Amino acid sequence: MTNKDARTPASTQNATNGSPDAEAGKSNGWHKAYLAGSRPDVHVPVRQVHLTNGRSVTLYDTSGPYTDPAVPTDVRRGLTPLRENWIVARGDTEEYAGRPVRPEDDGIKHTSPRGGLRNLDAVFPGRPRLPRRSRDGGAVTQLAYAVRGEITPEMEFVALRENVSPEVVREEIAAGRAVLPANVNHPEIEPMIIGKRFLVKVNANIGNSAVTSSIEEEVEKMTWATRWGADTVMDLSTGRNIHTTREWVLRNSPVPIGTVPLYQALEKVDGRAEELTWEIYKDTVIEQAEQGVDYMTVHAGVRLPYVPLTANRKTGIVSRGGSIMAAWCLAHHKESFLYENFEELCEILAAYDVTYSLGDGLRPGSIADANDEAQFAELRTLGELNRIARRFHVQTMIEGPGHVPMHKIKENIDLQQEICDEAPFYTLGPLTTDIAPAYDHITSGIGAAMIAWWGTAMLCYVTPKEHLGLPNRDDVKTGVITYKIAAHAADLAKGHPGAQEWDDALSDARFEFRWEDQFNLALDPDTAREFHDETLPAEPAKTAHFCSMCGPKFCSMKISQDIRREHGGSKAEIEEGMARKAEEFAATGNRVYLPIAE
Amino acid sequence: MTNKDARTPASTQNATNGSPDAEAGKSNGWHKAYLAGSRPDVHVPVRQVHLTNGRSVTLYDTSGPYTDPAVPTDVRRGLTPLRENWIVARGDTEEYAGRPVRPEDDGIKHTSPRGGLRNLDAVFPGRPRLPRRSRDGGAVTQLAYAVRGEITPEMEFVALRENVSPEVVREEIAAGRAVLPANVNHPEIEPMIIGKRFLVKVNANIGNSAVTSSIEEEVEKMTWATRWGADTVMDLSTGRNIHTTREWVLRNSPVPIGTVPLYQALEKVDGRAEELTWEIYKDTVIEQAEQGVDYMTVHAGVRLPYVPLTANRKTGIVSRGGSIMAAWCLAHHKESFLYENFEELCEILAAYDVTYSLGDGLRPGSIADANDEAQFAELRTLGELNRIARRFHVQTMIEGPGHVPMHKIKENIDLQQEICDEAPFYTLGPLTTDIAPAYDHITSGIGAAMIAWWGTAMLCYVTPKEHLGLPNRDDVKTGVITYKIAAHAADLAKGHPGAQEWDDALSDARFEFRWEDQFNLALDPDTAREFHDETLPAEPAKTAHFCSMCGPKFCSMKISQDIRREHGGSKAEIEEGMARKAEEFAATGNRVYLPIAE
Repeated sequence: MTNKDARTPASTQNATNGSPDAEAGKSNGWHKAYLAGSRPDVHVPVRQVHLTNGRSVTLYDTSGPYTDPAVPTDVRRGLTPLRENWIVARGDTEEYAGRPVRPEDDGIKHTSPRGGLRNLDAVFPGRPRLPRRSRDGGAVTQLAYAVRGEITPEMEFVALRENVSPEVVREEIAAGRAVLPANVNHPEIEPMIIGKRFLVKVNANIGNSAVTSSIEEEVEKMTWATRWGADTVMDLSTGRNIHTTREWVLRNSPVPIGTVPLYQALEKVDGRAEELTWEIYKDTVIEQAEQGVDYMTVHAGVRLPYVPLTANRKTGIVSRGGSIMAAWCLAHHKESFLYENFEELCEILAAYDVTYSLGDGLRPGSIADANDEAQFAELRTLGELNRIARRFHVQTMIEGPGHVPMHKIKENIDLQQEICDEAPFYTLGPLTTDIAPAYDHITSGIGAAMIAWWGTAMLCYVTPKEHLGLPNRDDVKTGVITYKIAAHAADLAKGHPGAQEWDDALSDARFEFRWEDQFNLALDPDTAREFHDETLPAEPAKTAHFCSMCGPKFCSMKISQDIRREHGGSKAEIEEGMARKAEEFAATGNRVYLPIAE
Repeated sequence: MTNKDARTPASTQNATNGSPDAEAGKSNGWHKAYLAGSRPDVHVPVRQVHLTNGRSVTLYDTSGPYTDPAVPTDVRRGLTPLRENWIVARGDTEEYAGRPVRPEDDGIKHTSPRGGLRNLDAVFPGRPRLPRRSRDGGAVTQLAYAVRGEITPEMEFVALRENVSPEVVREEIAAGRAVLPANVNHPEIEPMIIGKRFLVKVNANIGNSAVTSSIEEEVEKMTWATRWGADTVMDLSTGRNIHTTREWVLRNSPVPIGTVPLYQALEKVDGRAEELTWEIYKDTVIEQAEQGVDYMTVHAGVRLPYVPLTANRKTGIVSRGGSIMAAWCLAHHKESFLYENFEELCEILAAYDVTYSLGDGLRPGSIADANDEAQFAELRTLGELNRIARRFHVQTMIEGPGHVPMHKIKENIDLQQEICDEAPFYTLGPLTTDIAPAYDHITSGIGAAMIAWWGTAMLCYVTPKEHLGLPNRDDVKTGVITYKIAAHAADLAKGHPGAQEWDDALSDARFEFRWEDQFNLALDPDTAREFHDETLPAEPAKTAHFCSMCGPKFCSMKISQDIRREHGGSKAEIEEGMARKAEEFAATGNRVYLPIAE
């Protein structure tokens, strides 16, 4: 896999969807720029869109060094470890030998025909590295620093990114209202923050499965998802080469990576939930923490007494993690080993700065099951676990549903905020109806926009393939774009400072028929351009003073502009001219037969 | 164009999207059925989905006779005039010679190279008919009948369709809270109702333009849109053959057809807004009323004094009708001829039972312009016009925005309901952000779902091509499906009786791995099936007890079912078993280190 391959979509696969940077190379409509921090190594990437009227618009950028032609990248070597000096300089971590990587980490059994051999071809070939962890077993987390009043370079980085003061970032993290997922073993990331006072974030899931798998595909899905705006990526692989795939993804990811360690643990016991043990799970968590996973979904709220609450449900337990834990609890008739060992887990996560994403294993899987007893019983437990995690200074967010009709959405975020002390909420949709398989990015995009408006900090995307199959490259893009829409619509509704500038810039371009600017400012410039060209493909049409919808005679924007032109140049002149004419009209007397109720 | 052509999508055009009836022919998953009314000619079409567990689900059906193999259809002859006997029996209308059709009705000028010849090839070849209107000039509207306490066959029809009593239908129409658009010259329709107490409806726009045009395409777009669930269709054609295209569409449409007569009027004056006159407009309205247009958008609220209010806007006037009227007002510096002649217009519409859709010509075209003075000034005028229309017993609905961020949506519906005496609101989206051209079905689907939850009665769809070009067949389908999702999500949130049965049936099928039932119950069975087959194409996979997402080992639904199976057969047994086990657990004593907050 060459650098070029990772950066440019294969033309045979997706001829009509060039990557943004490829298009930018052609049209020169935007370039990667950096905001300078207080020190040379704090430089925050942004997307600078150049308009044809000489102005420019600065947009948040998640695409990493891949879109900077000045930065050489090579997926076989991995990204530059931007944060390494910051981590080392803190002096509270140390390198150590680490847990030996075993064949079963990649799903290869000693008893399998391929024996104990690892898939050596796939081993990540980048620079050798040793894992790092807390020197003295204490918390090396952004939360611990924030509570101590320290502003880390990571915090300064996100402050620049979000256009707020570093102190606001520190405060929100210290209060547990925001998390900055940044494992000490993932120095490659460009720090980002998840919290309701900041821009709403979007997570994209990738991952091979027992049915299909390819390491290259997963790495490419990650770079593809972040290119379109994914703020974090969860690697939910379940097939072979889980460990190695994750290594490739982590070393090349500019965004935090999340996982569900339970999935890999289950692979290690051949899918037999009842054979899971705390030791196997813990070993898997350490394996992944050493690799650099930034946040982990932990379904510690699925407790034995809650399982009967799901018996009357229409769709039972739909979370994979939730159902695995329920199966374990029932097989042994014991309390969940995750719940029982939660404090020890906190100690491990604190030593690497892995952020908890407390999973909602009992989330509703249908409209009928929304906001039921099982769901809220688990939520209350997550609230308790959040307080324990806080005691250990482990950053924590809380996962949420699922399938919820519109009128029951607000109760979810309100309860979560109350029960979980305003810890960031991280929701999957929710889907607002069950009747549209193949369109669940839309059924859930509706719910996602609403719940984010009301305070959800990060949205887990849903692709058109939800409930039906594994998302391909196009599905990943559609899912990310849909969720960027939901997130931005929420930023607008929350009145997030600066959010509307983007809309305003695009609307100005639209009103002034600056087609190229409209395309370059669009969430998806390629598709916008392609759709326009279908109707009016000629190059001059992109500067034409009419829309392709109406043709030259009928365009309302044009008529609207004519009105302005006719009535003067400056805004003041327009208003004066309009007002004068209106007065003339009023002076004509009582010619209207209807009084205006004003 | 043969019957077959109209009913089945050309395979070359869209190989992967078979029409539902074509699929049904194959899988026998559903059939067209009818609910019987109090008389033989009141039989209401429904879609009866047959499940593999022997049950069936009845769904609302808009697709007309085209999906009933027992009813011969031929687009060259038109549909059977279902309502003709009802209209004639009322005895309050009469046939008359009608306005002669002129070449300019089809955009053909005497001075053009083609002279006064009409496009004779395209003339609708169906049975000859004379237009019909009120015998004595009085109102022959469903509103007039409802106010008099009469329950018409049309009202009984929609009562069956909506599963409410005919008296509820009559009451809602009489109160002006609902409209039943049904021109006496469009006897082919299957009556439907638009009002907040009923199912949320969806309108799809079709129409050729100066850029592209084909009568066949437009008729096919109409049958295509209704097949996927469009409740009404607006023909917004602006190019040649407007009159003839409309004739074909009307004679073949099972749903009410709406238009914007101003568009055709403008064609008659070669696109020069200032040359429009009340006489030309009125003549066009009569022309269309005689053809059978069921509702007309009239931009009578765009008054001269409001035009200056748009001068400071980011995107001025974006409604085509609004900008035409603004241009006319300013060119003459006179009050709008629509506003000035509104009472005469009411008399005309009352004589055919054409429903008003009072246009929001000053709707916002960007997030920045939402809920501004211009928009609400016009809304207040629409409230006054609504009261005048009511005096003439003309059914009326009110059009709404546009581009509105989420936190400003509710104010729109609340104000409209207050100002317009609860007349049905009919909104375009609204779009909740401006940044995603090519995805405006989604930016607007979010706003549409919300505003419909809060009381909007009908949603005008937005396709992916909005702002960029003319929608093709795929865009029409995507727009309709997206808006059916928004409408149904709103039905659920409003607690509409029976709405959740659909979700429940699909969720049951999902939980029980009845894949074929999931597909057949889906809003778009074809795409759901196609997406599933991409990952697991083999036929046995459709009955497999695992999902294509996880594979056999990892499926949470399967684990959930295993739990149920393990713990008994019936629900009571499951519960008892679960409870017993949970008690066993509780009896083990204080093994948890954390009290549960319950």
